[in-house]
Amino acid sequence: MNFEYSESLQQLLRKVDDFMEKHIYPIEKDYQEYVEAPEHLWKVYPGMEDLKTKARAEGLWNLFLPKEYGALSPGLTNLEYALIAEKLGKVIWASEVLNCSAPDTGNMEVLSKYGSPEQQERWLKPLMEGKIRSAFLMTEPRVASSDATNIETSIVRDGDEYVINGRKWWSSGAMHPDCSIYIVMGKTDPSAPRHSQQSMILVPADTEGVKIIRPLSTFGYLDSPVGHAEIDLSDVRIPASHLILGEGRGFEIAQGRLGPGRIHHCMRLIGCAQRSLELMCKRVSEREAFGRYIKDFSSIRQDIARSRCDIEQARLLTLSAADKIDRHGSAGAKDLIAMIKIVAPTMTCNVVDRAIQAYGGMGMSSDTPLASYYSYARTIRLADGPDEVHMYQLGRNTVKQVLKNN
Amino acid sequence: MNFEYSESLQQLLRKVDDFMEKHIYPIEKDYQEYVEAPEHLWKVYPGMEDLKTKARAEGLWNLFLPKEYGALSPGLTNLEYALIAEKLGKVIWASEVLNCSAPDTGNMEVLSKYGSPEQQERWLKPLMEGKIRSAFLMTEPRVASSDATNIETSIVRDGDEYVINGRKWWSSGAMHPDCSIYIVMGKTDPSAPRHSQQSMILVPADTEGVKIIRPLSTFGYLDSPVGHAEIDLSDVRIPASHLILGEGRGFEIAQGRLGPGRIHHCMRLIGCAQRSLELMCKRVSEREAFGRYIKDFSSIRQDIARSRCDIEQARLLTLSAADKIDRHGSAGAKDLIAMIKIVAPTMTCNVVDRAIQAYGGMGMSSDTPLASYYSYARTIRLADGPDEVHMYQLGRNTVKQVLKNN
Amino acid sequence: MNFEYSESLQQLLRKVDDFMEKHIYPIEKDYQEYVEAPEHLWKVYPGMEDLKTKARAEGLWNLFLPKEYGALSPGLTNLEYALIAEKLGKVIWASEVLNCSAPDTGNMEVLSKYGSPEQQERWLKPLMEGKIRSAFLMTEPRVASSDATNIETSIVRDGDEYVINGRKWWSSGAMHPDCSIYIVMGKTDPSAPRHSQQSMILVPADTEGVKIIRPLSTFGYLDSPVGHAEIDLSDVRIPASHLILGEGRGFEIAQGRLGPGRIHHCMRLIGCAQRSLELMCKRVSEREAFGRYIKDFSSIRQDIARSRCDIEQARLLTLSAADKIDRHGSAGAKDLIAMIKIVAPTMTCNVVDRAIQAYGGMGMSSDTPLASYYSYARTIRLADGPDEVHMYQLGRNTVKQVLKNN
Amino acid sequence: MNFEYSESLQQLLRKVDDFMEKHIYPIEKDYQEYVEAPEHLWKVYPGMEDLKTKARAEGLWNLFLPKEYGALSPGLTNLEYALIAEKLGKVIWASEVLNCSAPDTGNMEVLSKYGSPEQQERWLKPLMEGKIRSAFLMTEPRVASSDATNIETSIVRDGDEYVINGRKWWSSGAMHPDCSIYIVMGKTDPSAPRHSQQSMILVPADTEGVKIIRPLSTFGYLDSPVGHAEIDLSDVRIPASHLILGEGRGFEIAQGRLGPGRIHHCMRLIGCAQRSLELMCKRVSEREAFGRYIKDFSSIRQDIARSRCDIEQARLLTLSAADKIDRHGSAGAKDLIAMIKIVAPTMTCNVVDRAIQAYGGMGMSSDTPLASYYSYARTIRLADGPDEVHMYQLGRNTVKQVLKNN
Repeated sequence: MNFEYSESLQQLLRKVDDFMEKHIYPIEKDYQEYVEAPEHLWKVYPGMEDLKTKARAEGLWNLFLPKEYGALSPGLTNLEYALIAEKLGKVIWASEVLNCSAPDTGNMEVLSKYGSPEQQERWLKPLMEGKIRSAFLMTEPRVASSDATNIETSIVRDGDEYVINGRKWWSSGAMHPDCSIYIVMGKTDPSAPRHSQQSMILVPADTEGVKIIRPLSTFGYLDSPVGHAEIDLSDVRIPASHLILGEGRGFEIAQGRLGPGRIHHCMRLIGCAQRSLELMCKRVSEREAFGRYIKDFSSIRQDIARSRCDIEQARLLTLSAADKIDRHGSAGAKDLIAMIKIVAPTMTCNVVDRAIQAYGGMGMSSDTPLASYYSYARTIRLADGPDEVHMYQLGRNTVKQVLKNN
Repeated sequence: MNFEYSESLQQLLRKVDDFMEKHIYPIEKDYQEYVEAPEHLWKVYPGMEDLKTKARAEGLWNLFLPKEYGALSPGLTNLEYALIAEKLGKVIWASEVLNCSAPDTGNMEVLSKYGSPEQQERWLKPLMEGKIRSAFLMTEPRVASSDATNIETSIVRDGDEYVINGRKWWSSGAMHPDCSIYIVMGKTDPSAPRHSQQSMILVPADTEGVKIIRPLSTFGYLDSPVGHAEIDLSDVRIPASHLILGEGRGFEIAQGRLGPGRIHHCMRLIGCAQRSLELMCKRVSEREAFGRYIKDFSSIRQDIARSRCDIEQARLLTLSAADKIDRHGSAGAKDLIAMIKIVAPTMTCNVVDRAIQAYGGMGMSSDTPLASYYSYARTIRLADGPDEVHMYQLGRNTVKQVLKNN
Repeated sequence: MNFEYSESLQQLLRKVDDFMEKHIYPIEKDYQEYVEAPEHLWKVYPGMEDLKTKARAEGLWNLFLPKEYGALSPGLTNLEYALIAEKLGKVIWASEVLNCSAPDTGNMEVLSKYGSPEQQERWLKPLMEGKIRSAFLMTEPRVASSDATNIETSIVRDGDEYVINGRKWWSSGAMHPDCSIYIVMGKTDPSAPRHSQQSMILVPADTEGVKIIRPLSTFGYLDSPVGHAEIDLSDVRIPASHLILGEGRGFEIAQGRLGPGRIHHCMRLIGCAQRSLELMCKRVSEREAFGRYIKDFSSIRQDIARSRCDIEQARLLTLSAADKIDRHGSAGAKDLIAMIKIVAPTMTCNVVDRAIQAYGGMGMSSDTPLASYYSYARTIRLADGPDEVHMYQLGRNTVKQVLKNN
Repeated sequence: MNFEYSESLQQLLRKVDDFMEKHIYPIEKDYQEYVEAPEHLWKVYPGMEDLKTKARAEGLWNLFLPKEYGALSPGLTNLEYALIAEKLGKVIWASEVLNCSAPDTGNMEVLSKYGSPEQQERWLKPLMEGKIRSAFLMTEPRVASSDATNIETSIVRDGDEYVINGRKWWSSGAMHPDCSIYIVMGKTDPSAPRHSQQSMILVPADTEGVKIIRPLSTFGYLDSPVGHAEIDLSDVRIPASHLILGEGRGFEIAQGRLGPGRIHHCMRLIGCAQRSLELMCKRVSEREAFGRYIKDFSSIRQDIARSRCDIEQARLLTLSAADKIDRHGSAGAKDLIAMIKIVAPTMTCNVVDRAIQAYGGMGMSSDTPLASYYSYARTIRLADGPDEVHMYQLGRNTVKQVLKNN
């Protein structure tokens, strides 16, 4: 057991810090103003391509992809990338610059692990090069989708094709103008055993029968240009070769996709929390009320102290989960992966909320990233299953393990 | 002591319920779709005037104004109006239909209590008739405005005029196309004793030197058509007769304005919380996961039970504050007015948050009012002084009283 | 609706205050030292009888008993007595001085409402005169007793007698040297419908087969001389006339007993919380650290402000429940009775905990009543059904009501 | 960075587990019954000496002492011992069996680091052999002792002696019949700079002028035979050679004593929390209510899941603090040492509280260790400075660091 970072890891982290300091933070305000102007809705920030080129030139590209799928990436461990994800999380759109943004990361991982050579050539390659973007169509408006057996979208074999019917929503990224491929989860066999009903299939965004109904907002944010779409799938016909891995293996793929994605989300959230704490510390050092700097009120100091404790604990927990995935795989880290999903989003909501409170009204506005951090963290408490589902399963597993060990 | 409503109060409440059922709820979705369309930004919902006419015809107009200023209102007690405010709060824009929306209510109260006959004729009358709207310019971006002695806007006498310079923000309502008058708080004498430095003055929105810089968002919401404006005041010249009550009396007016306004805000929030609970109860009765209706999970029942307890307690506290204002005036109810400001917004945030969680992703979208309730309640934790300021003062007062009584 | 106390109620409350000031507070320390001396275990404080005589002489006797059973009591409403119970709660043993202590109050109420003339003559009369004390034997060590259908104690008819077998615990008051009568809950017919299996029977403490196994502690408190006993009942034979109301009516009696008892417990707890707040205010005014009086730290002021808000809300909720019982009976007040049980004990734990924290180590010791308040409040979160059971039922009822009304 | 235990550490931990399983758990109930019998007050459990002999024979002795003072100990790192301390914490008195109980550990560390050869020979040696026990006299009843400059006890040089006058309390361990030496903190020079006023001196318990006033209870517990004493020091004369390190160095010694002691306390508390979780899991698997095993209620599963997350986070935080001490010394780990003091006691209180709730009344009694765990954890929130002091300082330091780094 050892809580120190190696020298090489420290170097890599400094490199990411430098990139952020040089290329990201200086244009943060400019980016924000661009994307929130009504006339730029669903348009990509003009400087984005240039930023990507710079990142790629510095080797800061596809960092998320573990070494086993390594040719196109530097092959970091999950633990190493986790620390980078925290840094990227401080600016919500920074991950995209390094081609490390969800849901592309998860989709690239799926294609790397389970895609056929043809699928990899056609979609993984341009994704890895940042030329296209992708979405993951899982959640449905009509059912409690956290219970995957509720999923109603049908994927029916018809000759050399599959015919897909269903309604999906919260398909993040699908509003992006470059989003050209979806991974769709649906049932190929509703009568199969519980975990063999589901399959995943690749659906190009421009297929006939695919219709974007509307963008969804989170609080008042449309999160342009990424967006969260509601999408209708009506008699969408797809070549059978687009099915990933085989019929009935959707659940298996979903499980495999989970671990690293959770680490990324949680570490980005921890980045949001960490930066909120930093912003808060600065703000309370600049303002006075009732004859004292705000930083000298003991209640504010408590908020700061609690936030620091909360962040550090969640960080260690998430890093330990990443380390466990590296050593024992996602299955071996199952409980820890559930734990970080329970802990990190709520922790971030709490820390951000304290920072908003310290900022006063400004904290609610777009003059700081705080309000958008809150919206992001609050959404993650629901995405990928609400907290309640993870606690339900973790509680059950914990009882089982205790009874077994004692 | 008696916790039951009189027969006549019950009748009045049923009348408000009927109005909501007949005229408000049926168009709630339509209203929402109208205001969130980008092309309707800062435009008023077309049906609004008609709704106002209906409300006025039924005597549901200016209900907020206590009987002492009564000719233009039915003269309800604060306690009676409080219960109506809860019902109106369930639909955020419903108060406007009854000419009971902030900040007009507070501004009308100020003009009723402290306005000169000329001021009343020119601004109170059209406000009471719903022909114009108003804003209250208090908070400033450059200082911690919760400590009123920090206010920097200057109001300087120059012959028959006052010259105003300063920057204000979070001026709610100022984006509304009908907003034509501001009450501005500033310092006429920065060297006077702490509570005599401030004055309030009436500034028509179209005065030269008044410039709306931008609308501010809260969690991404612009709250069109009401809005929250940042406003610059540069050498704004106003006739001396527009000063309210006299130089150095701004603090006194602010105090007098506080009590009933807090009751209204808190009861509207309680309305948000109550409706969130009702929506949550319906949602969990309709959905199943893991083999059971969501309503049958004990954790969901706890969320519901806690929410009900939280709401009922905050409601009783707020009603007791209203009753105290009715019997002993705002000064006599000072501590209770602080208590409801501390309790109701946070309570509402918590209850709404539980409802969002029960809804899943849909709770974050605009398909329910939940996300906008949250934004509203979260903002009120900051508006009119952050929680911390009220706790700081209530804590001090409580210690004093205990030491005196024991 | 009216939140003010009538003049006559204020007079009565002043009378109770005077009695506390004159007779209770001055000997509080003496009482505490007496009961915590190991040599006085299970002995009654020598001055107790004299105090009771004084209370009775002033008419402060059996105040808890509502007017319908009134000959032996002043016949207060539940609302009126609730306010007195808060005052008595400030000193845990003060209720006994006025013959208003649990579980005697509940037992006297049961006997008043449901007892036969013979039962009333033999046990109610001496209880009302404070000559004997009683216990209520409900909870069992072997089953989750909050689900009353789990109760295993059997009450079997055998000729003119009932034969009782079972094990009870948490029989509060049973260690008291004057405790001479138990009301025992058990099953006369385990095969009857769920709510008709149970009966209640009067068991004199000196009956053969009754054996006190041991006193139970709460944290480290034995609560001498009252105590919480574990009691074995082995072939205890009782005349059939000792059965209360009739076979299968135990559940009905338990329900009838509930409402007022909950009010009493909750108001006593609110008294504990209120006094904790008062003690805390004094303490923080006397001590300095890091260059400032502790009362001037904003975090302490927040603790005080929050505590005051929490207490006042729980008080209003409990008073509204009492008022509802007065007007609509316990059945009509069912939900409110659940709500105060959920709210008041946890609120008291929180307030007392903050006061302990403000006191430092002294707060954990017996130099203040705080630690014993905490123990009392924590126990009440479990007694009479843990919070979870009440939330489970209140959650269910709330959903039902919402669906019905909307 | 690496979250796995080495093979040798795993072996050591298994050895401790085996000792606990073989020698501690089997007599836990017997020990509890012995110490809670009134007739055994301040008597040592008869089997204690035998247990110590066994532990020493197995090399499980003085494990707490880091390698730099190693001759008498196996010289573990703080990180290694931390994991052992968690295991020992599961049974509150187990640390004593391994000669690893507070405050002896801290006192032995002080004597190892700062004691003169004479002081080490006379007191460190018998302490290391478990022949005598010790106390640390710091906190005073008359002042807020968390601000060390408030300390009033005077240590005045008079020829070859020091004369000590003062009143101390919460001197844990001082009631133990074997306690024969105190380390006393007091002021040798009240006019010196803030951190040079204090000194520490060794005072044999049987010195004239030393008087144990009384034992203090925590939530009713006297914690026999260890106890928490109030002690009066009246003209206590001590040879000058008993002063530790030199006049004015008390603060320095106190700081040096802090780090490892905090690790021990926090890890023991984490042991309490971990075992509470285990006990809770077993309990809810054995009981049914309302037609279901208690473990199958989602609210209980949430309590279990939250507890597991809370424990694991606090554990990682504390282990990281231990690792930091090992690598950078207590000064280098200052913030982390503050963080664990803020986190671990409150976390333990919360986890234990949930377990108590799951147990029902039994959880409040001495039939499980839960209630005593709670009392221990609640006390540690105050001992060694209340949470508020640590948050006050950590908040200040955090602001400073953020401003420096950004």
